[in-house]
Amino acid sequence: MIYENYINRIKNVVAENRQRNDLTKAWTSYSDIDVLSKTKADLLKEQKLFNNKLQLKAQPLQLIMHPNIEDARIGLHPDFKHLKGTDMMEYHYIVSVFIDIKGSTNLHNEYDLEEIYVITNTIQSAAIHTCLSLGGHVQRLQGDGVFAYFGGKSVDKNQAVKSAVIACSMFTYFVDNDLNKIFLQDEIENIKTRIGIDFGDDNTVLWANFGVLDVSELTTLSLHTSLASKMQSWAKSNGIVVGQNIKDKLEADESLFDLVRNSKGEVTKRYIFESEKKGFRYTQYSFNWYKFLKTLPNIRSDESGNLYVIDAAKVEEERINSLKSTGILINSGNAFLNKQGNISNQPTGVQHQPHRFHYVK
Amino acid sequence: MIYENYINRIKNVVAENRQRNDLTKAWTSYSDIDVLSKTKADLLKEQKLFNNKLQLKAQPLQLIMHPNIEDARIGLHPDFKHLKGTDMMEYHYIVSVFIDIKGSTNLHNEYDLEEIYVITNTIQSAAIHTCLSLGGHVQRLQGDGVFAYFGGKSVDKNQAVKSAVIACSMFTYFVDNDLNKIFLQDEIENIKTRIGIDFGDDNTVLWANFGVLDVSELTTLSLHTSLASKMQSWAKSNGIVVGQNIKDKLEADESLFDLVRNSKGEVTKRYIFESEKKGFRYTQYSFNWYKFLKTLPNIRSDESGNLYVIDAAKVEEERINSLKSTGILINSGNAFLNKQGNISNQPTGVQHQPHRFHYVK
Repeated sequence: MIYENYINRIKNVVAENRQRNDLTKAWTSYSDIDVLSKTKADLLKEQKLFNNKLQLKAQPLQLIMHPNIEDARIGLHPDFKHLKGTDMMEYHYIVSVFIDIKGSTNLHNEYDLEEIYVITNTIQSAAIHTCLSLGGHVQRLQGDGVFAYFGGKSVDKNQAVKSAVIACSMFTYFVDNDLNKIFLQDEIENIKTRIGIDFGDDNTVLWANFGVLDVSELTTLSLHTSLASKMQSWAKSNGIVVGQNIKDKLEADESLFDLVRNSKGEVTKRYIFESEKKGFRYTQYSFNWYKFLKTLPNIRSDESGNLYVIDAAKVEEERINSLKSTGILINSGNAFLNKQGNISNQPTGVQHQPHRFHYVK
Repeated sequence: MIYENYINRIKNVVAENRQRNDLTKAWTSYSDIDVLSKTKADLLKEQKLFNNKLQLKAQPLQLIMHPNIEDARIGLHPDFKHLKGTDMMEYHYIVSVFIDIKGSTNLHNEYDLEEIYVITNTIQSAAIHTCLSLGGHVQRLQGDGVFAYFGGKSVDKNQAVKSAVIACSMFTYFVDNDLNKIFLQDEIENIKTRIGIDFGDDNTVLWANFGVLDVSELTTLSLHTSLASKMQSWAKSNGIVVGQNIKDKLEADESLFDLVRNSKGEVTKRYIFESEKKGFRYTQYSFNWYKFLKTLPNIRSDESGNLYVIDAAKVEEERINSLKSTGILINSGNAFLNKQGNISNQPTGVQHQPHRFHYVK
């Protein structure tokens, strides 16, 4: 599981709170976690350890970790930080990502401040970690939420879009699946996430300082940064809404995108921006992140639909095995080439002829 | 006018855009501003000048300027900055203020990016300037918006609340009155502000680092910080919504507060937070900032209802004059003390007797 450390931290707090509130209940859940002997001071000490670099390095996410993760600084995109504190401006494309955490105010019903701190900080840290791991730059923390950029001067636009979409899909899976299981047992409303993503091209994104003196932020002025933030508010619980530009650049199957609809299936807001004057309409889409994750080469799902990441060596091993079995199949004389260009032993399409060459693109 | 420099900057851009879009129209408005000869490069150069310290010092707002305004740094409240980058936490009261700017996305219909930059940055700078001038600390810029704290270790709680409310009222007046006039002439939707303010007491506000490594923010975890942000979304255009704690601490007239109502006058959301479990309900109020501003000793209004600030010397002069005329009145033998403790020549209440002492609290 990708988010194992994050999940365990939250389990600790939730379990400790449950136990304290109801000592008469039999202790059956989370038996793998030794919380009975832990005081709040212990938990806070763990939080400290958790925050230091040594611990961060040991996260399971490391396997897909961006090399510069430890140099990351909030609000300072490395390709534009030379603009900070100056009056210069620069035009450059960027992908804007707004990740919102909903429902944390309800935690005040159930938990005390220090427990809420551990829970919300852990969730937010998981979001930060996911973005950094996929090459994103965290621009700003907003309450429990995260505003991140993907892309830069040496990053291909399509790749930047893809990285942003993968990061958001992974984080949403974490909240929808792992977090959900933890809170299900308590009578509190679930924590949900809502995400908006959009891409602004080179001529539509202005990088500049906002504010006065040292009360300033180096950030982007762009319709598409604003729209990413607006789209977030159109996302369902644990939903991702993306702009037309993302759809155009992701090179993913059409079926992953749907217009934004209400619970009755009616289209509620097709265009997130319309300018009669400029004759311009911009469409937003609800994005099927679960289906998307399953198309990724290093993601597998088990029988219950739970997803897990396999490492690069494993992907390579599977590829080799697949090649080997195809080789065996071809040598057996029972290989068929179907319309999709796949070779199998299903007798549809063209049967393999001995001594014919196979060209692989 | 308090916001003269800010207004003039925006007028420049709006007028330049209008002129460029419609060169055939007679040029009648803003005749005091020499925009006809200005290119965009000129305007951007002005922006640079505007941003430097020398210019800032010359702002009319200086008369009420906080002494440490030039040391202000975003996200680093001076009383808690020692916590930054550490694992320490601290409990301390704070007033949380969320100022949102609405309608700026519509600027993309009318203006190009560099014009929008000047307009939105000027409005945001005015908000920052107002907060700093009244002793506030800007925690975060959020798009066009500002999240600020008021109060600190050496600040009285009631005074912190009062400063926050004055800052928000002044800024809302600026947007509602001055900015409105500028955009009225153009066919674009107005820029509006919405503000939420709440006070969290010492035992309900936890100061701590959020995030991981250098991707972190020193901020407060508090129900009342969260509620200030939520209340903002309940505010009408150019409205301020405050929590019960603000009402309790402001020591202002009851008539300045009303429950949050829709356009039909129906109460839409009385309690911004309810916890059945904790038996706790928290009320939000729509705040009459215009009426409040008029009660301040250094604010006057002209016949049209326009407000203006008078300086401390002027306030003192008025006080002395008022004392003098009261003295003359008393000596004339026609002075009456009414139930409110005011002395006038209206023959209601107790008539002044010669040689009786007046105690002034």
